[in-house]
Formats: sequence, C-alpha cells, structure tokens
Amino acid sequence: MQQLFLIGIGTGNPDHVTGEARRVMADADLILIPRKGADKADLADLRRQIVHAVLGPDAPVVEFDLPRRDASGDYLTGVDAWHDAIARAWVDAAGQAQRVALLIWGDPSLYDSSLRIAARLDPAPTIRVVPGITAVQALTAAHAIPVNEIGAPFVVTTGRRLRDEGWPPGVDTAVVMLDGQCSFQSLSEPERYDIWWGAYVGMAEQILDRGPLPEAAARIVATRARARADHGWIMDIYLLRRR
Amino acid sequence: MQQLFLIGIGTGNPDHVTGEARRVMADADLILIPRKGADKADLADLRRQIVHAVLGPDAPVVEFDLPRRDASGDYLTGVDAWHDAIARAWVDAAGQAQRVALLIWGDPSLYDSSLRIAARLDPAPTIRVVPGITAVQALTAAHAIPVNEIGAPFVVTTGRRLRDEGWPPGVDTAVVMLDGQCSFQSLSEPERYDIWWGAYVGMAEQILDRGPLPEAAARIVATRARARADHGWIMDIYLLRRR
Ligand SMILES: C[S@@+](CC[C@H](N)C(=O)[O-])C[C@H]1O[C@@H](n2cnc3c(N)ncnc32)[C@H](O)[C@@H]1O
Ligand SMILES: C[S@@+](CC[C@H](N)C(=O)[O-])C[C@H]1O[C@@H](n2cnc3c(N)ncnc32)[C@H](O)[C@@H]1O
Repeated sequence: MQQLFLIGIGTGNPDHVTGEARRVMADADLILIPRKGADKADLADLRRQIVHAVLGPDAPVVEFDLPRRDASGDYLTGVDAWHDAIARAWVDAAGQAQRVALLIWGDPSLYDSSLRIAARLDPAPTIRVVPGITAVQALTAAHAIPVNEIGAPFVVTTGRRLRDEGWPPGVDTAVVMLDGQCSFQSLSEPERYDIWWGAYVGMAEQILDRGPLPEAAARIVATRARARADHGWIMDIYLLRRR
Repeated sequence: MQQLFLIGIGTGNPDHVTGEARRVMADADLILIPRKGADKADLADLRRQIVHAVLGPDAPVVEFDLPRRDASGDYLTGVDAWHDAIARAWVDAAGQAQRVALLIWGDPSLYDSSLRIAARLDPAPTIRVVPGITAVQALTAAHAIPVNEIGAPFVVTTGRRLRDEGWPPGVDTAVVMLDGQCSFQSLSEPERYDIWWGAYVGMAEQILDRGPLPEAAARIVATRARARADHGWIMDIYLLRRR
C-alpha cells in the first residue's frame, strides 16, 4: 500500500458525494469496505451502493470483517489493540494493491478513527483525505438553521461530555454527537434551551424534531426509542441553543 | 419567488460540489450571483465557473450588485439595514422567477448571513438548504488531521473572539475563522499551542503551514501578508491545539 485515500462520503445520502470523492474513488486500485457482521449499522450496503453508482458493477471492491474490540479490560488499552488489529486487517485485505481507498462516513476528520489507525501503518503510505459533508451540516441543512449565532462561537461535543460536564462553558450553542442516551435530559434549567434534533439525517429514513427543550425532550426520547426498535439501529445528532 | 435554494458549494474547489448541489442547481429557474464591484474576493468568477461546469454555457444566471454596508453608524443597525437591502436586491434580480438559487461559499449554516437575509423575504419562500464542504473540513483534509482529539469537544470561533476573550474555556482545540489579524498572536503562553494554518484552502492558490505556535506564528504572519499583497485578497483559517 503506497497511497491510502480516506474519502468522506457524507452522512448516508449518496447525493452528498462530492466530485473530488468520485474522482479519487476512480483513482484507487482497490476500495475496502468493512463488515461488522450482523450489525445493520455497518452501512456496508450504502457504501456498496455508492461505489457502484460511481464506478459501475465492476468496481474493485474488497470487503473485510472488521475486528471486534476487546471490551473486557481497560478502555484505552482495548481501543489501542483494536486499532492495531484494524490496521492489520486493512493491510491483509489490500493485498498487493498500491492505491487503496476507504469510504468514511461524513468527514474523515470528525469523530472518526481512520486517521489514527492509518498512522499505525508501517511502512507508512501517503495519506490523502477527501473532505465530506458532516452530520453537523446535514442537521443544520435539514432544519434550515445557522449553526452559529452572528459572530458567535459554538462547540461540537459528545453525549458523554454533556452528561459528565454539563453545559460547555463560554458558548450558547452546542452540537452533540455520539449520544446513545439522549443526554440533553441531564441539563439543569431545561427551560433555557431550544433543541433541533435529527436521526438518519440525509437518509430516506430521516426524522426531524425541534422545539423548546422542556416540551421536545420527552417526544424525542420516545421517537428515538421507536425508530431504533423499528430499524434495529439509529444515528442521531442535535443542536442545543441557550436563550 | 416561491422557493429559495441556498446551495453550499464548498470553499473554492469546484470539485467540492456535491451531487445534491448539482441537482438542485439544475432545478432552479434562476441562479443569482452577487458582484462586489472591484473586490476580487467576491469570487463571482468561481461561482460562474461552477454554474457553467454544471449547467453549461446557457445556464440561467443573473448577476446583481451587492449593496454596500453603511459603516458610518452603529454596527448592528448598519448590518440590519444592509440585510434588508440585500433581500430587496435578491427580489429585484429574481424578477418573475419562482425557483431561485444562491451559491453559498462553504456551507450555508456556517458564518454566513443568507439564512438570516432569507428570513426577511415577504412573502416568505420555501427555503431549501444544500449542505456544502466547510472551510473547517477543507483545512483538516489538507493537513490530514482530525479536528477533535479522541472523544473530545472542540470550538469553532472567530478571530475577534479569540482576541477579546482569550483561549475558549473547556476545550483543547479551537478552529478560528474570520480572522483578519492573525489573532493567534494574542494568546498568552504560546508555547502551549500547535497551529495548523491554511489560506485559499482547496483552491489552486492553497498555502499551508503548521508547527509549534512560537516558531510558526511569525512565519504565518509574513506568508499571509505576502499572499494578500500578491492576490489582492485572502481567506485563511487555522486550528489551534493546546498541549
Ligand atoms: C463516529 S461519529 C462519525 C461522524 C462522521 N465522521 C461525520 O462527519 O459526521 C458518528 C456520529 O455521527 C452522527 N451521525 C452520523 N451520521 C448521521 C446521520 N445520518 N444522522 C444523524 N446523525 C449522524 C451521530 O451523532 C453519530 O453518533
Ligand atoms: C464568512 S465565512 C464563510 C464560511 C463558509 N460558509 C464555510 O462554510 O466555510 C468566511 C471565512 O471562512 C474561512 N474560509 C472560507 N473559505 C476558505 C478557504 N478556501 N481557505 C481558508 N479559509 C476559508 C475564512 O476563515 C473566512 O474568513
């Protein structure tokens, strides 16, 4: 592997794919698609669809089984070993190919470990990153809202941080990702916030909700639980704005 | 005007344009392109190029002169009157067209006033926002770096805020936009930071620099001044990470 292309493909809408992503996909000798076994959220289907839409049925795709993370011991040690295992799986699946591409959900820079895994490859290939539409932009576009107030800063954070640390200091806007627990419920003074929420944003399954947090919170919790049960998986994101 | 399409086109690389942006552009009866007079930074040329690449030479483009902001009085009053004037200029330029498109630099949600101007239109058209690659993603892709540390939050802010308020609380990463003054120079304890800087990111003129802040700061200030003099305009962005 001499070159590794990390190609942002957007958040589930094949129409999010950029011209650059198409071009770099076409340039690759091989496109690796990870499989997570029975997990529907591996979205391998969508990656296959995108590759076939761009390169046709004879696209040079190789699928590989994503190693599982050992969740028994210390978290960071487990992740470390897991990233090593994924790097090896990439190398094995790539075989003799020199220009290898991975299709990255959203943008490769945002809450994604591919760049960190790629840094473990030895010998080190040249890395090319192709930017993609993130879930943040997909959310704000779906709601037709600005992410920032005029000239103001905003934070992007995780559900865990919001739960553990409360409202982030110094900002009136926070975008929350990676939240399996509707952590907006943990905010004190909910009456100070408005929420714009979305699940499967950009996809056919898209669900949106918005409103003052005290009234929207219970509704979103219920909608989310139902959607998750129906589809077997969910991805959601939200923007909170403090009044 | 019954429908208004705000179409994110990325940050200057025509290859950032998504399939959705192309499709929605093709759906419009009219595409408005603002002109800022002699200001090279209006990037009207690039917008023209993108429209012609997508729709061919007969694209239904109408150019209009962007009203000037009255900078004499109070800032917010000036901006308010200016946004009203832009909304009127859109309506005048759109004439009888029902589906009108504007090509928005980067993503329409990020430090862009089009959504706020659109809210002034009366009668209100339906608004459709098409997400685009932001300067944030363009920067991190060019440097092949993650925007966040593992599971950690980050702030997106402006040069003015960094200058006026210092390092944002609660985060180790800040992305700074809209900074005409290299405000990273105002940080106390510069030895605690690394910087990843880029100008004209994604464009043919792209310039990148990176390094520990104490050594990179003076270099970036000089590079920026030279590039600005050479091109007559500049757009730059940077990511700061605290050690
Ligand atoms: C591991 S992160 C990857 C983010 C991705 N790299 C990006 O640029 O958006 C996964 C999180 O992104 C958000 N996400 C990704 N796609 C989404 C979608 N289509 N709808 C809602 N949230 C989404 C969710 O918060 C999810 O927990
Ligand atoms: C008015 S804001 C618009 C941002 C845009 N909506 C986006 O999504 O990136 C303009 C700021 O974006 C950043 N910017 C936009 N395009 C850029 C580029 N090609 N290279 C570097 N910075 C850029 C600069 O910080 C600039 O001051």
